[in-house]
Amino acid sequence: MVRRSDPFQPAKRVAGQKQDVWTIVNEAATASPVQPIINMGQGFFGYNPPRFVLDAAKEALDRVECNQYSPTKGRPRLKKAIADAYSPFFGKKIDPDTEVTITTGANEGMLSAFMGFIEPGDEVIIFEPFFDQYISNIEMAGGKVVYAPLQPPKEGATKMTSASEWAIDFSELENCINDKTRMIVLNSPHNPVGKVFSKNELEAIGALCVKNNIIILSDEVYDRLYYVPFTRVATLSPEIAKLTLTVGSAGKNFYATGWRVGWLIGPDHLIKYVSAAHTRICYSSVSPLQEAAAVGFERADEVGFWEQSKHEMKSKMTRFCKVFDELGLPYSEPEGGYFVLANFSKVKLPKGYDFPPHVSERPRDFKLSWFCIMELGVAAIPPTEFYTDENAHLAEDWLRFAVCKNDEVLEGAKERLRGLKKYMA
Amino acid sequence: MVRRSDPFQPAKRVAGQKQDVWTIVNEAATASPVQPIINMGQGFFGYNPPRFVLDAAKEALDRVECNQYSPTKGRPRLKKAIADAYSPFFGKKIDPDTEVTITTGANEGMLSAFMGFIEPGDEVIIFEPFFDQYISNIEMAGGKVVYAPLQPPKEGATKMTSASEWAIDFSELENCINDKTRMIVLNSPHNPVGKVFSKNELEAIGALCVKNNIIILSDEVYDRLYYVPFTRVATLSPEIAKLTLTVGSAGKNFYATGWRVGWLIGPDHLIKYVSAAHTRICYSSVSPLQEAAAVGFERADEVGFWEQSKHEMKSKMTRFCKVFDELGLPYSEPEGGYFVLANFSKVKLPKGYDFPPHVSERPRDFKLSWFCIMELGVAAIPPTEFYTDENAHLAEDWLRFAVCKNDEVLEGAKERLRGLKKYMA
Repeated sequence: MVRRSDPFQPAKRVAGQKQDVWTIVNEAATASPVQPIINMGQGFFGYNPPRFVLDAAKEALDRVECNQYSPTKGRPRLKKAIADAYSPFFGKKIDPDTEVTITTGANEGMLSAFMGFIEPGDEVIIFEPFFDQYISNIEMAGGKVVYAPLQPPKEGATKMTSASEWAIDFSELENCINDKTRMIVLNSPHNPVGKVFSKNELEAIGALCVKNNIIILSDEVYDRLYYVPFTRVATLSPEIAKLTLTVGSAGKNFYATGWRVGWLIGPDHLIKYVSAAHTRICYSSVSPLQEAAAVGFERADEVGFWEQSKHEMKSKMTRFCKVFDELGLPYSEPEGGYFVLANFSKVKLPKGYDFPPHVSERPRDFKLSWFCIMELGVAAIPPTEFYTDENAHLAEDWLRFAVCKNDEVLEGAKERLRGLKKYMA
Repeated sequence: MVRRSDPFQPAKRVAGQKQDVWTIVNEAATASPVQPIINMGQGFFGYNPPRFVLDAAKEALDRVECNQYSPTKGRPRLKKAIADAYSPFFGKKIDPDTEVTITTGANEGMLSAFMGFIEPGDEVIIFEPFFDQYISNIEMAGGKVVYAPLQPPKEGATKMTSASEWAIDFSELENCINDKTRMIVLNSPHNPVGKVFSKNELEAIGALCVKNNIIILSDEVYDRLYYVPFTRVATLSPEIAKLTLTVGSAGKNFYATGWRVGWLIGPDHLIKYVSAAHTRICYSSVSPLQEAAAVGFERADEVGFWEQSKHEMKSKMTRFCKVFDELGLPYSEPEGGYFVLANFSKVKLPKGYDFPPHVSERPRDFKLSWFCIMELGVAAIPPTEFYTDENAHLAEDWLRFAVCKNDEVLEGAKERLRGLKKYMA
């Protein structure tokens, strides 16, 4: 090894500083002549956590031990609350001490799982489109990402479809598996597609993983928001449970994406290494908000929070999507979560419209996103960001909208989107 | 690469599951016949953050945007508050947008710095004794740790010494530097020694780093607790500033180790890669407590918090150390922070005392720690945990006590420690 000529040269893992979608969209939002922008892009909530959870956070702030280090694996009260809440779903008694570990959001939880099991050169399979953080998390651990594309509904440009029609090509998935395959990432309900993977699909994936000794990392952060029957892959069989880590998020469950409290549930022989990695990454996670999340789980059923949460989000989805019905823009009806993909192939971008170079070189959805921000004042996310270059064409006519916003905001966005009429054939 | 025979085999970076000092001490505390234990071990505060900071946290919880994702580099208000608070110390206007980045505690901040600059095989120099998380953080990035021991005061076993007498051997330090040396970690005020590195020492280290293009990562989390003049290495010269990252902690500054809000200050060409790594590790940090920390910095001077904080901690140190004076046990008088190392070479452990195997195989300080927990009900940390095996003998007669506890607790610990008399020659 020779000394770098530049003493400030970064490590390769952070050197690629391609402008990401969030930066592009936020910059466009700032530059738009329509102000303020209605931000339907990023999936943060436009309203507060429920009162009983906020009150619990405030009470925790008054207790000395809730302001100091938590155990690295998480506060016992939160681990117990999660074990109690999830044991019925898993059909077994989850051990809070060995089968649950708390992380600094689901994001750092997934990084901890990759750091716990991935050696340089190991391969991890993910479906396209993907939540973009998966890629950097896998690469931080030295892993190689292998992509299995979900095939969009064939008629998605011309008629209404269901998120269930984004299909797994199982022969393609099997082709992704080789001797280096160590893990697969599932995400159900899925971001950005809104697909809830069916029991049949999960059984087929699970069988492949059992046969090939592949660890399943199941990102289920939208697990309380499903509008069709929801299956947790870990519950399908003892063989699948043995190799499955399930990821959850208090931020998504309790409308508090800035709280950074997540967890993993799984068998002891997997959880202990996730914990070990987490300890080396963050040491421990934020204490008072862990305590608040514990109270959230303890009381959610009794106050009917989960049902209310699901009902409200589904209503928001229905309310918002009406504008696409009006416009005759087909969308992929979500089975879960709070994202909806709408197909904009009918929208004609004016000839000679002036896109900046970093937008004009990207697929059509980036231009659609830019155009909606500049001309209508509504921000949405171009989903090709969640694809490899090779497969980006699959999604270049779609835009992702997040409906976890107040109803007035949704109505405001709808009113602005009606302005699309004049750009449609 | 061949498939692992064990599908659950962890990555090497987490496989070494040696029982750490915290686990050993906590297990002993649970097993002790004297209950409840007085825990003078870990450096968490025995009291709450100041009221004005707690109130700010509660107010933040009522604001929608304070419960959702913060920008990955941190909340603008906190970055500005830190830039404003530190610009006078740095003798220059710190740019909050490019020269400050917020992290999930100082710990994840340091990991982000290593992940930002260390490639596998790069070397990082740290002084022994060290804060134990440094090691795993450096190794996570694939770095190799190179150790430069601080030499304890020669007469530390027989008379009172000063933490300043823990000395750097500069020729040994120079021998640690080679073509692979990428970074050095400084820690002032130092944990566990309590040494505040002198201006002369820092100038000499800085000159070595400038000459050899070594990035300085200066862990200054105890920066508000110094009892002798305190120099920040980044302020010594523009050449040193150019290669220095300074680490701070709201948890240490505001008595809230469980809040997980830290930051790095440094030149743009370093900070941007720390941010890039942080984004890939935690995405963003806890929002409402960032907002509270911002208010903390905005108001601390006006309410006289920093002076009060330093004064109170120094009083606690003086109050607690009186018991060592009484007992005739010499200690190393701290120049900063809240830890004190006391020398227990005069304490005779009873012959044939029954230590469990995982304690009896460790150096004498582990036995001293175990003995104090079991016989006296006082927990302290054996500092050889913070040394390599090779140099552990340097510290085997010392124990580390944390004085950031309520005065009643300190008095209780003193009363129990008086029980040592009968084990002294």
